[in-house]
Parts: sequence; structure tokens; C-alpha cells
Amino acid sequence: MEYRFARRSDRVEDSFIVEIFKYLQDKEMISFSGGFPNPDSFPVDALKAASQKVFESNGKNVLQYSQTEGYAPLREFISKRYKQVYDLDIPSDEILITSGSQQALDFIAKTFLDPEDKVLIEEPSYLGAIQTFNSYEADFITIHLNEDGIDLVSLKEKLTHDQPKLIYVIPNFQNPSGVSYSEENRKGFAEIVKQFNVIVIEDDPYGELHFTDIKRTPLKKLLPDQTLLMGSFSKTIAPGLRLGWVCAPQAIYKKLFTSKEASDLHSSNLDQQLIFQYLSDNDYDTHIASIRTMYSAKKTQMEKAIDTYFPKSVKVYPCEGGMFLWVVLPEGMSSLDLFYEAVKEKVVFVPGDPFYVGRQHTNTFRLNFSNASEKDIEEGIKRLAKVIEINLK
Amino acid sequence: MEYRFARRSDRVEDSFIVEIFKYLQDKEMISFSGGFPNPDSFPVDALKAASQKVFESNGKNVLQYSQTEGYAPLREFISKRYKQVYDLDIPSDEILITSGSQQALDFIAKTFLDPEDKVLIEEPSYLGAIQTFNSYEADFITIHLNEDGIDLVSLKEKLTHDQPKLIYVIPNFQNPSGVSYSEENRKGFAEIVKQFNVIVIEDDPYGELHFTDIKRTPLKKLLPDQTLLMGSFSKTIAPGLRLGWVCAPQAIYKKLFTSKEASDLHSSNLDQQLIFQYLSDNDYDTHIASIRTMYSAKKTQMEKAIDTYFPKSVKVYPCEGGMFLWVVLPEGMSSLDLFYEAVKEKVVFVPGDPFYVGRQHTNTFRLNFSNASEKDIEEGIKRLAKVIEINLK
Repeated sequence: MEYRFARRSDRVEDSFIVEIFKYLQDKEMISFSGGFPNPDSFPVDALKAASQKVFESNGKNVLQYSQTEGYAPLREFISKRYKQVYDLDIPSDEILITSGSQQALDFIAKTFLDPEDKVLIEEPSYLGAIQTFNSYEADFITIHLNEDGIDLVSLKEKLTHDQPKLIYVIPNFQNPSGVSYSEENRKGFAEIVKQFNVIVIEDDPYGELHFTDIKRTPLKKLLPDQTLLMGSFSKTIAPGLRLGWVCAPQAIYKKLFTSKEASDLHSSNLDQQLIFQYLSDNDYDTHIASIRTMYSAKKTQMEKAIDTYFPKSVKVYPCEGGMFLWVVLPEGMSSLDLFYEAVKEKVVFVPGDPFYVGRQHTNTFRLNFSNASEKDIEEGIKRLAKVIEINLK
Repeated sequence: MEYRFARRSDRVEDSFIVEIFKYLQDKEMISFSGGFPNPDSFPVDALKAASQKVFESNGKNVLQYSQTEGYAPLREFISKRYKQVYDLDIPSDEILITSGSQQALDFIAKTFLDPEDKVLIEEPSYLGAIQTFNSYEADFITIHLNEDGIDLVSLKEKLTHDQPKLIYVIPNFQNPSGVSYSEENRKGFAEIVKQFNVIVIEDDPYGELHFTDIKRTPLKKLLPDQTLLMGSFSKTIAPGLRLGWVCAPQAIYKKLFTSKEASDLHSSNLDQQLIFQYLSDNDYDTHIASIRTMYSAKKTQMEKAIDTYFPKSVKVYPCEGGMFLWVVLPEGMSSLDLFYEAVKEKVVFVPGDPFYVGRQHTNTFRLNFSNASEKDIEEGIKRLAKVIEINLK
């Protein structure tokens, strides 16, 4: 039977991540490819205890249908934390709980995008976002990401010329590049963007995982009516629970609420109450500080290994938080070709290509450090150095 | 700021359910309005024990990112259960775990529907499905539901004339009407449908909650390549965990998988492993049998109360399972008007209107019996009878 799919179904391809998964079956493979938090950071015992409490105190309620907008005390917690950490005022009734922030992205795309509407993204950008916008038949405009943030000259030019409906950015420790916008870049961004009728999607899964205490003002604070701020517990508590959120002005919040209702009614009531119980019984700041220490050490070790073993013609972007290092090979070298060579040496990473729209054989690639052991970082970077050396010649 | 929403955003209205919620704040209100399972049926202690086991045996794994398609042992369980209960062969790699079957509906709509594509639905139909199809800008074709199933003459005529891409049906104990397709109706349906290039969405959240042992062959068995069969643990274990699934032929499964990936990566890993642990440690058949007994008794009590108190000009559809009774008022009487009269007498139900596409002041309404107490059924039906009597005059 010849199935009659929607037009949008033709636009979405298998992601390269699926290709990589094949190689991860090999137990000797060292992987810097994932975007996974380190499981040693998961508060297993505390969550176990919290789950007992939730079942004991609220068993029937937690198993019943619940509110589409999410568990009220959890929304309150998120609102208070924004105030505490960023002095940012977000009323809890403008916070919609979603199944990971990925789902918020889906609802935003669904709410704003007709086919051929334009979305402005950083280059490189998060491949899951590209995939989601693609599934709503968006057209992409890309803006180069510098080491201190988005290119402002290009931003103004493209906003004027292309009138995109949405701008998608990850200002803190971007996936894949690790780039953080400087305070100056953030202010410049806001100055330009406020002159246009465009919505900013500020994706911030890594903001709490900073290795330095430099001020990083949320774009939401600079552009409150124009910004949809997304957050997540995936990188700070546990991704398996699939809990994130989006903060939106009321007029947009209502549309996102309706999308949530038509999509899955609400996120897991158990997971929401479980996380809230955990947050009530434990010191979240102490917990996050321990993740920062763990990841910062891994990042430093990986940078040092790269410095020791990689040829000097290979560059690495500065990284002050998050989970990734971004490597730039000499011009003309293909990280995709390098990937298949590296597989033979039992080490994998994510080649740059899937992080770009319509570009192939780019000379960049992503290394994940959060989920690699000390031993694997040393040995994996050595193996990778060998492969690069050979392919440089 | 004037936001530039997508066209589809204009199509979705607030559901009437939100309106009803307002009245449920009143503690004296008797509600037959929800679509909620009875919380007394939730296996709280068994799930609590299962959650301990999962955290103890698999804590780090259960909190990590997981496979988009769902937890493999859970997919295996569902495959085996179809074989056991219906002698239906569904390979586990054609089962995609979703966050409630509502989410499967969203992915199916996204995969198949371009704006103005036609969807054939029963009249009345599940309002959540109407909302989801609406959000993809579908056009609706409706077919009258008889007491023994869908109207076959009309089905053939409309398939020929309108060439819909999708047919959405709930053959077992439909929400809202409680109607079940007879075996003859199912066979007639399949005979007609197999002549057309159309996909059948067989939504089956209530199939296991039957009060009689009549044979009910899944449409999936009669039309394997054309049918997407959706199921759910919401009505048999707990809706708060948001776990359902869809069974799809490989070519369609791949598209739904991609939708899932772009939407929320995967459903809660904890909830999936929790349900699987529960199913491994407990007798699911015994559990479901106890729900059947509970709901069947409530249904019988409600039918008896209606028979005792309602005017004879009010009809009720036969009901052999599920959670709802469907009431037909005398022609010309509006259940929406009646709703606001009933509110004054402190009893609520769902008027028929939201279950129809573009019809207002219908003479039908839905009563939920699964979540009402013995006392409330007696008293609520009495109150309702009084309101109907007054409005008949």
C-alpha cells in the first residue's frame, strides 16, 4: 500500500545520531559523541526516598490525571529560582511544564510556523531544534556564531531583509559549540531585536552548569515580551524523567497550553511530584555545585589532553560551562571523513555536519566531556590525535 | 506586541472541559463530567514497591536518556498481550511507546495531514481527537454512529466521494457514546475500507474494560496494513503516568518514530520501567478483572437510577464496557441549556456539543460512571431527573 503522508514527512531525515549508535555497541569504543549527563551526578538515593514519600503521602492523586499546565508547586519553585539566581521575574502562571524542553520547542514551532516561514538560527546550532523546525516546514536563515556570541552585524541585516518569525538561540554554553554570549553581545542582541516583530526562543538547558561566575543576563530579562525562555531538569537532576518548561507571555502561553493539551494532556504527574519532593528535601544549590565541579574537572582534563596530543593547527573554542568542546580542524579537512577513520581506532565524536543546515564536510566536530571517564578522556584524545595526524598528511 | 501566530493557531478553541472545571470547585457539586478512572482502582502499594525495586536495581539507568521507541521489555509485554488476549500478531518493533495514546494521535495527525486534508470521524466522537486533528488544519467528514457500530452505507458513500486520508474510530465502548461495534459491523467495515487508500486509526483505551465476554475482533486484525492501533495504560493502571502506545506497519512506524524524536525524545524512562516492573510482579488479569467488576456495578446502578427517575422520553444507549453512558433527550431539547440548569441543582455532565463538529444545542449528553460513588450516583441522577422534568414542560 502506498501511504499518503503529509508534505512535512518528506523533510525529516534520520539524524546522524542514529548512525553513531551503531558503533556504540562495540564495548571497546570510546565515545565523546553523546549529549548525556554523567550518571554519577544523578541523585539516585534521594529520588528513591522522594518517590516513597510521594506514594505514601499522595498515592492516589499522583496516579490520576492532572493539570495540563503542570504541578503548581513545581511551577512556583521554578519562578522563585529565576528570581533567586537571575533576579528575573517570571510569574508561575507563565510557566508551562513540558516533557523536556525539546517538547516546548515542538509547541513553539507548532504555534508560530506556517510552511516556508523563516527561522533564524545560530550556525552551528542544536540538531534537535533543526529537526523540529524542519518538521513544520520552516525555512532557515543562519548567523555565524563568534567566540563571544552571535554576529550582530549579520543579525541586523538578516532581521531587516528576511523578517523571520523566530530566532532560536542557546546563549549559555551552546550545544554544540560551547559558546556563551558575552554581556556586551547580549545587550547588543537585545538592542537590535527589539526593533523587529520577532520571537526569541532562548533555550537554556546548560545555564546552571557554569564553571566561572561571570554574569550572564538572560535574554528574557532584556526582552521580556519577545522571549520564550526554556529550561530543563535534564542536565541538573535527570533526563530520564523528561521534565522541562517554557516561560511565555500570557498571549503565547495560552497557545502553548492548547498545544500541550492536544499533544499529551500533561507531563507525567509522578515525575513532576517526584522532582518537587526531591527539591523540597534536598539542597539544590549544593547538588548543582557538585555537578559543576565534576564537569569542570573533566573539561580541564580534556583541554589539557588536546593541548598535549593534538596538532597545533587544530583549534578548540573556549568553554566556560555545559558539556561540550568544539573542535575546528584546518580548513578543507572533513570531520565526516575523519569520523569513519576514528571509528577504526575505536573512538567516536559527532561530526559538525548535522549541526549546520545544508552544509557538508565541515571542518568542525563536537566532543562531549560530561560523560567520559578520566581514563577514556586521556586514551580517547590520544587515539583521536593519531587519526588527525594521519589525515593531516 | 502583535504576535504572528501560525494559521493553525486560530483553529483551536478552549475546550468546554475548561468551562466545566470552574464548577467542580464547588464541593457540593456532584460530577458525572470527567473521563477519569476511579482512583480506588489504582494499585498504589504495588507501584510503590515497584518503584523501590526500579531505583534499587537500575537507578542510574532509569534516570538517564533512553530509546525513543520505548523500553524494550515493555514493548515485548504489549506484543505478547495482544497475542494472548486477541490472538493478534504485533511484532514489538512495530510498537512505539508514547506519552498517553493522545500523543500517538498527535504524531499520526502530524505524519499524515496537510491543511484541508479530510479526516472521517464517528458522530459523536472523542473531543480530544477533534482538537488534535483541528490543530493540523484538517477538514472533517462525519458518519453517524448506530447502537451497533458505524453506519456502513454512509461509510462507503463518503469514502468514495471524499477520499479522506484518515478514519478515526473507537470501536470498543466509545467515548462519549459507550457504543461498541458488533462483529458483523467490524467485518462490514473492513470489507468496505480495504477498497480504499485510507488509514484507520483504531483508538482502544477501553477495550480491556468489558462487562460481557462477547468477541470483539480488533480492526487491526482485519486490516493489518491499513490500521494504526492505539492502546493505553491510563484506564487499566494509572493515567498520571501518561503511558500509551501505537502499533504501526514499519513504513508508518518510522515516521511516527521521527515525530516522537522531534517532540520529546522519549517518554519518561522511570514511568516505563515502573509499569514494566509492576506488570512483572503482579497479575495484570486479576487487576483488570477487579476494575471490570467495580465499573460494571457502577454502570448497572446508574442505569437503574436512570430507569427509576428519568422521564421515559429520555433514552440511554446500551453500554457493555468502558466508563460512559450516553443519554438522548427528546428531539429539540438542548443539553447545553440543561447543563446550566443542572449546575444550579449541583450536578454536572458533559453536554453533547463538543463531541460533534460544528453542531450546537444537540440533545445528547455524556455521563461518567467510573469515578462516581454509589451515593453520588443515586443522588446525582435524582437531581438530574428533576432538572430534566422541569425543562420538558
